[in-house]
Amino acid sequence: MASSTGPVLGPGLLVSVNRTSGVALNEQIESSIRDAVRAGQLAPGARLPSSRALASELGISRGVVSEAYGQLAAEGYLQSRQGAPVTVARRVSSPAPPAPTLPLLPTYAYDFHPGMPDLDGFPRDRWLRSVRAAIQRAPGSAMGHGDPRGQPELREALSDYLGRVRGTASDPEQTVMRSGFRDALALLCRWLAGRGVEQVAIEEPGAHAHRLIVEQAGMSVVPVPVDGHGLRVDALARSGASAVIVTPAHQFPTGCVLATERRAALIAWAEDEGRLIIEDDMDGELRYDGARPGALQGLAPERVVYIGSASKRLLPGLRLGWMQLPSWLTWPLVSAVTVDGGGPGAISQLALQDFITRGELDRHLRRMRQRYARRRDTLLDALAHHVPDAALSAGAGAGAAGLYEVAYLPADTDDTGWITRAGERGVGVHGLSLHHFGSPTRKGFILGFAGLSEPAIEQGIRLLAASRTRARASN
Amino acid sequence: MASSTGPVLGPGLLVSVNRTSGVALNEQIESSIRDAVRAGQLAPGARLPSSRALASELGISRGVVSEAYGQLAAEGYLQSRQGAPVTVARRVSSPAPPAPTLPLLPTYAYDFHPGMPDLDGFPRDRWLRSVRAAIQRAPGSAMGHGDPRGQPELREALSDYLGRVRGTASDPEQTVMRSGFRDALALLCRWLAGRGVEQVAIEEPGAHAHRLIVEQAGMSVVPVPVDGHGLRVDALARSGASAVIVTPAHQFPTGCVLATERRAALIAWAEDEGRLIIEDDMDGELRYDGARPGALQGLAPERVVYIGSASKRLLPGLRLGWMQLPSWLTWPLVSAVTVDGGGPGAISQLALQDFITRGELDRHLRRMRQRYARRRDTLLDALAHHVPDAALSAGAGAGAAGLYEVAYLPADTDDTGWITRAGERGVGVHGLSLHHFGSPTRKGFILGFAGLSEPAIEQGIRLLAASRTRARASN
Repeated sequence: MASSTGPVLGPGLLVSVNRTSGVALNEQIESSIRDAVRAGQLAPGARLPSSRALASELGISRGVVSEAYGQLAAEGYLQSRQGAPVTVARRVSSPAPPAPTLPLLPTYAYDFHPGMPDLDGFPRDRWLRSVRAAIQRAPGSAMGHGDPRGQPELREALSDYLGRVRGTASDPEQTVMRSGFRDALALLCRWLAGRGVEQVAIEEPGAHAHRLIVEQAGMSVVPVPVDGHGLRVDALARSGASAVIVTPAHQFPTGCVLATERRAALIAWAEDEGRLIIEDDMDGELRYDGARPGALQGLAPERVVYIGSASKRLLPGLRLGWMQLPSWLTWPLVSAVTVDGGGPGAISQLALQDFITRGELDRHLRRMRQRYARRRDTLLDALAHHVPDAALSAGAGAGAAGLYEVAYLPADTDDTGWITRAGERGVGVHGLSLHHFGSPTRKGFILGFAGLSEPAIEQGIRLLAASRTRARASN
Repeated sequence: MASSTGPVLGPGLLVSVNRTSGVALNEQIESSIRDAVRAGQLAPGARLPSSRALASELGISRGVVSEAYGQLAAEGYLQSRQGAPVTVARRVSSPAPPAPTLPLLPTYAYDFHPGMPDLDGFPRDRWLRSVRAAIQRAPGSAMGHGDPRGQPELREALSDYLGRVRGTASDPEQTVMRSGFRDALALLCRWLAGRGVEQVAIEEPGAHAHRLIVEQAGMSVVPVPVDGHGLRVDALARSGASAVIVTPAHQFPTGCVLATERRAALIAWAEDEGRLIIEDDMDGELRYDGARPGALQGLAPERVVYIGSASKRLLPGLRLGWMQLPSWLTWPLVSAVTVDGGGPGAISQLALQDFITRGELDRHLRRMRQRYARRRDTLLDALAHHVPDAALSAGAGAGAAGLYEVAYLPADTDDTGWITRAGERGVGVHGLSLHHFGSPTRKGFILGFAGLSEPAIEQGIRLLAASRTRARASN
């Protein structure tokens, strides 16, 4: 019997078949043999039983085994020549043993992540209603490859919305949908790098992500200081950069608004030598103090790329972002997108269009503003009570807005040690130093309040305070 | 009255308010003035009516006008100093007049696009059921930023599916979800370019998109000839390239399958000096002749990047693609993705997981295989009848599969003129020459049959034949 000259391939060992699994018998045999080759149980050159012998062992017809052998020979796992026994063709380099499955990000019982909205606030039923409308009504043209900029209906609705609530000068023809803010900024940075731009100015302190994306595109960053009125445009002018990333409506992390005269100076800088302003409007609608700082883009649509996303307004997991482009930049970027693909799916885009058009986004933001304002108050009260030496505002420009607050700490605070100890107690906080590129000028925490309930905020800050080791007391 | 010294701002001209629109009155005034500044109707320095005068003209309270003026001053549109009249601050560079809205791709009544599946075959109700399940069951962790590789449940389901139907050696930990094939290949090409790779080999003839994506990443392509057994690995070995993009299960456009001995030679080439094979498995499940050419990746998972997508299997508009990566390449690419973002939304991913797990994808592909086999037969019959001198197979390896067939034409055919004339009659066809990088060795059309009904195929080919000008007859 052939099986005596090679490894035993029979029921219970390497090949088994299950008549009730719904998978064809030949496919079952193929999978078993592939797996055995990959696992090294069948070495190169090893002889397999004849199709007659294996069929008899398994109690199935010989044709099924022959078909499986033929398939595996075609795929390159087995060798089969007229009159010669079937053998294993080659060693398959089996994948390295799988690494232990670790979550890529730590999880905390009390996660004060500054970028996280309230995930429980996502109106699943209302979103489902919009998705249903999108699936039912989507035209065939939307279901194919479609316009590389995104669905026309959505670009229209979004331009109207942004013009209304953010004061942008929007044109649906110059709107491009991407999979979130990072995806949009990365696309733009690749284009800039391809045009020979070597340096992009960023705010100092500023969003760590801006720096990572610029650098991944092969450019370097020039940090430009921020004060209580926003970006120091005088320092920008001395930097030599030809593009800058700014957060005019709500500076990250200091929270200030770019002052009126700074806006004019920034636009003059851009218009002076055809420079580019990249506006990150991450949370422009989320203000709780009645102020409504508009988008910079409306003042100079040919010099500003406006980028926003649904992440903080609705849900990060939707991966929906948008760019409003100057007319001269639209076609170069659309060409790049036409080649590289990407961007969000048509159904998600049409769902967002329905969600905006039916007023659901406005309603959702109204609900969230009320909820976030309460959570912010809870955070400030808890800090005042448990961390009384924390100072709570960067300067004149910071107001009640966004998803986080900065708590500035005395200069002799051991902030990094404190963050580590808080993490051990299940409290996740970001240090201000993460978003400084040079030496941090002030110490502090950036505390997201939006994703936590009021009792969780109170308890989290209590635990945070309890994790402190006072530098002076321990001396 | 102030309005006499500047442009008249009153009802019916530049500012109008509508008490029943649901938009706050101050926001209406702001929009009107922003638009007037942008349109040049209000020039820099122009004086606005006092808030008292405008309020009186509009019949609203003065506080509303003051709020609007204050907001516009903060945004930089107006200038407002204590005691002085409010003036227009600056000229807003108004966007260039919008270009006429043109669709970016031509549309045809009979579009034989080779990459288009049957959009009407998309099971909207079944997909909606999966989306509903996804929205209702999605854990909070899915709704946040989530794992940069994609949703773990989907990566698990997809690995099982691909192992079963494509013979891949899949590991969910090494699976990365992207927004379609192009997005995945572009990500990989950027990584290769960043590592100093200068040349990537591609198939000749081969998919035009491969070349565009490689070149956009800053590398050049080396075309390697394809014959009836697939890629000529001997020519690849002489090319000097350290990476190659191949379509082993169904070569685009010739339709042949990479032969068993070529597979072994290709893997030996890759293993020889740590080279990389990029496998484009665009339509592996779509075969109508009983053959089931497996994925190359299963034979050498540490040397092959496997890329597939839902575009031809389900719907291009979903923008769902996947990569199976070698273990050594997983973390570098995940790092890049963590910075640049992108990838599909969580709800779409969880919907695909539900769709696969409930067997809907298998059922859909069974239905489509039957439909596509009929459409393919219709196309072949119509060609035999209307274009009898067309030859219908590249060589030994081509079978009944995929979404298109190649019709080879006599060498003296004016193929480009024919394509133009067919387009004028509403018939869209791709020439073989589009997917050649050097001089085309053969003339022909690549005719997609999947997206057209059987009567439309018959009629389209009839019109195509009628658009022919016989070179000899016109001499």
